[in-house]
Amino acid sequence: MSPRYTRIVAPLPSTVPFVGPEAQERLRGRPFKARIGANENVFGPSPLAIAAMREAATQAWMYGDPENHELKGALAARLGVKPANIVIGEGIDSLFGYTVRLFVEPGDAVVTSLGAYPTFNFHVHGFGGRLVTVPYVNDREDPQSLLDAAQGKGLADSAGLPPKLIYFANPDNPMGSWWPAADVQALIDHLPAGTVLVLDEAYSEFAPPGSLPALDVDNPAVIRFRTFSKAWGMAGARIGYAIAEEGVARSFDKIRNHFSVNRIAQAGALASLQDPHHLEDTVQRVRASLERIADIARQNGLEPLPSATNFLTVDCGRDGVFAKRVLDGLIERDVFVRMPGVAPLNRAIRISAGTAADLAVLEAQLPLALAAARNP
Amino acid sequence: MSPRYTRIVAPLPSTVPFVGPEAQERLRGRPFKARIGANENVFGPSPLAIAAMREAATQAWMYGDPENHELKGALAARLGVKPANIVIGEGIDSLFGYTVRLFVEPGDAVVTSLGAYPTFNFHVHGFGGRLVTVPYVNDREDPQSLLDAAQGKGLADSAGLPPKLIYFANPDNPMGSWWPAADVQALIDHLPAGTVLVLDEAYSEFAPPGSLPALDVDNPAVIRFRTFSKAWGMAGARIGYAIAEEGVARSFDKIRNHFSVNRIAQAGALASLQDPHHLEDTVQRVRASLERIADIARQNGLEPLPSATNFLTVDCGRDGVFAKRVLDGLIERDVFVRMPGVAPLNRAIRISAGTAADLAVLEAQLPLALAAARNP
Repeated sequence: MSPRYTRIVAPLPSTVPFVGPEAQERLRGRPFKARIGANENVFGPSPLAIAAMREAATQAWMYGDPENHELKGALAARLGVKPANIVIGEGIDSLFGYTVRLFVEPGDAVVTSLGAYPTFNFHVHGFGGRLVTVPYVNDREDPQSLLDAAQGKGLADSAGLPPKLIYFANPDNPMGSWWPAADVQALIDHLPAGTVLVLDEAYSEFAPPGSLPALDVDNPAVIRFRTFSKAWGMAGARIGYAIAEEGVARSFDKIRNHFSVNRIAQAGALASLQDPHHLEDTVQRVRASLERIADIARQNGLEPLPSATNFLTVDCGRDGVFAKRVLDGLIERDVFVRMPGVAPLNRAIRISAGTAADLAVLEAQLPLALAAARNP
Repeated sequence: MSPRYTRIVAPLPSTVPFVGPEAQERLRGRPFKARIGANENVFGPSPLAIAAMREAATQAWMYGDPENHELKGALAARLGVKPANIVIGEGIDSLFGYTVRLFVEPGDAVVTSLGAYPTFNFHVHGFGGRLVTVPYVNDREDPQSLLDAAQGKGLADSAGLPPKLIYFANPDNPMGSWWPAADVQALIDHLPAGTVLVLDEAYSEFAPPGSLPALDVDNPAVIRFRTFSKAWGMAGARIGYAIAEEGVARSFDKIRNHFSVNRIAQAGALASLQDPHHLEDTVQRVRASLERIADIARQNGLEPLPSATNFLTVDCGRDGVFAKRVLDGLIERDVFVRMPGVAPLNRAIRISAGTAADLAVLEAQLPLALAAARNP
C-alpha cells in the first residue's frame, strides 16, 4: 500500500513557487552575468553583520537561542514595542506558513490580489484554504476591492463569518507600487470583525516617508511582516519577523519550529541593527540604481513604473507574451530577471537594483533582447 | 472579535519543547561553565565547514539554492542513492513537521515511545494527531511494542486502517540505547501496510558498526532522518536531511518552505562532507569524552548506561525526584545538563560529550550536586 497522504496534501502539485537562479544556471549550462531578478540586495549586509556572521560560524556547533531573546529586544527597542510583540522566523515565508496554519481551516476563504506574492498563496493552498483574488487597480493592490470581497456573502464560512485573512503588501511586489499610510490605516479600520490583515511590509525600508501606518500592537487584527532579506541584505540568512499583538504573537509558539532560526543569522541580524548608517546608505544606493535602470528602460522606449521597493517594474508596452519574450531574451543573454505572473501585470518585467557592473550588462543586453522580442 | 484560530490550534499550549540554555542563563543571571546538555558537538564543525561558512557569510545577500542541488548530489554520492531520494530541511525538527503534515489528519493515531523525542510529539499535536505511546523496554524503544500497538484495533482509523506513522529512533535519545540493524530491519519488514516508519537516525554516525539497516529507497514506507547538527557539529546552522523513496521525497516539495535552508548552512554542510577525517576524529573524541564521563559517574557511585550517541545517560540509582535534584544541583553549579521526561527513564540524567574543560567542571561539581541531592 502506498503512503496515505492527507486529503489536503494528496492533490497538491509538487510545485516550487519560484525557480531559483541556480536552477536556471544549471539548465542553461552557464552562470548569469547579472543577478538582478530575485529582489536580493546586491549591496550586501552591513560590514558589522558580516563580521558577526563570520564570528558566529565558529560557534555553529551551538543551537541558536530558540527564544531569539536578544534580537527581539533590539527590534522592540527600535520599533517602540515590547519584545512580546515580536515573532522571529526563518524568513517571512515561514512566518506566512505559520500564520496560515494558525487561522485557516480547510475550505476557509482567504482574500488576496490576483498576481500578489505567490508564496503566501502556496501556504493557503498547502493548508487547504480557498484562495479568493481581486484584481489590482492601476498596478496597485486595492484595499477597497479586498474589503468588498471580504464582505461579500459568498466568502462567509458556515457560521456566516467573513474570511479569516486578507493579504495586503505595502509596498507591493511585483509591481513596486504603494499606498500612503492613511489608506492602509483605512483598510485596517474597515476590516470585518474577525478578519486578520496579513500586512506584508518586506520592502518597507524602501518606502517613501508617510507610507507606513503607525504600529498599533493593541490591535490583534493586524500582523505586520518584515525581513532582513531585503534592505538589510541578508536573504540567504533566512530571518524575518512579525509584529503583532501579544496574544497573537504568543500563538506562534504553539506551532513554530522553535529552534529553526540559524544562530549565524541571529548574530547577523542583531549586528545589522547596530549599523543604521549602512541601512540608509543601502536605501540611497538602491534608489540611485533604480534611477539608472529607469534611464536604461526609457532609452529603450520602455516605461518604468514608480517604485517604493528595491526593484523596478518596467512596462514593456505590449502584452504578456511580448514581455515574456523580452524576459527570455534577457535570460538568454545572461541577465537574471523575473516578471509578474498574471495579466495585466505581466505586460512588465521586474528588474532588481544592481551594481554598476550589473547595470552595464543590462544596458548592453536590453536592446538586443528587445530587438529579438520584436522580431521573433 | 478576537482572531479565530483553527480548532486544532486554539487548544494548544504555547509550549517550547525544550527551554534553551540561554533562557536558563538569563533566568540564573549568569552563564553556564559547561554547556553539555543539548547534545551539541563541542568539538565543532570541520575547519573546512567553518571556512566555507565564513566565506558564505559575505554572500548572505543571495538566497540559497531552493533545490539544494549540490548538497543533495554530494549526499546521494556518499549514501549510494539518487539526489531525488534526498530531502534537505532546516533541521530534522522541520522535516518532522513536514512529515507529520504530509500524512496526519486530525484524529489520526501516531505511535511512538513514552519518553521519546518531544519535538516529534509537538508536531503530532500541532497537526491534530492522536499520539499513542508504548513504554521503553530495558531503556530501549521497543520495536515489538510499537508494532503491537500499531496493529491493535483501537488505533485503526474510520477506514479500518492502521496508524499513518510510527516513530522510532536508532540510536535513541534520551537513553543513548540502540538496536542492531537486523532488529530495525525486522521492524521495517513487519510494518502494517500503509504505515510509514519515521526512522530518526540523528545519532547514526556515533552508532556501532552493524546498527543501521541498509538503505532501501525503493520502500516508500520508511523515511530516514539524519542531520548535520550532531556528529557534523553544525546544530546552529539548522540543516538536516531525509532519505526516502523518490515519490515520498518529492511530496515534501508540496509543502516545504522551499527557500528556508540558510545559504551559509548549505555551504558548511557541503564542505563538511569533504572532510570525512574530521568526522572520524569527532566520533573518537566523543567516545573518549563519554568514557571520561562514565568514569566520573562511577567515581560518584552512579551507573552510566551504554551509549551509541554523543551523550551519556547516567542512572542516578533512585527515582525521578532524586535525579531531578541531581540535575538541579548541577544547573545551580553552572553545569548545563538535561534529563529524560518520564518514568522510569527519568531516574537518569543526560550528559553530552564535552571538552576536557567541561568535564573538569563536571568532575568538580557532580559530587557536590549529589551530596546536596542526598541531603535536600
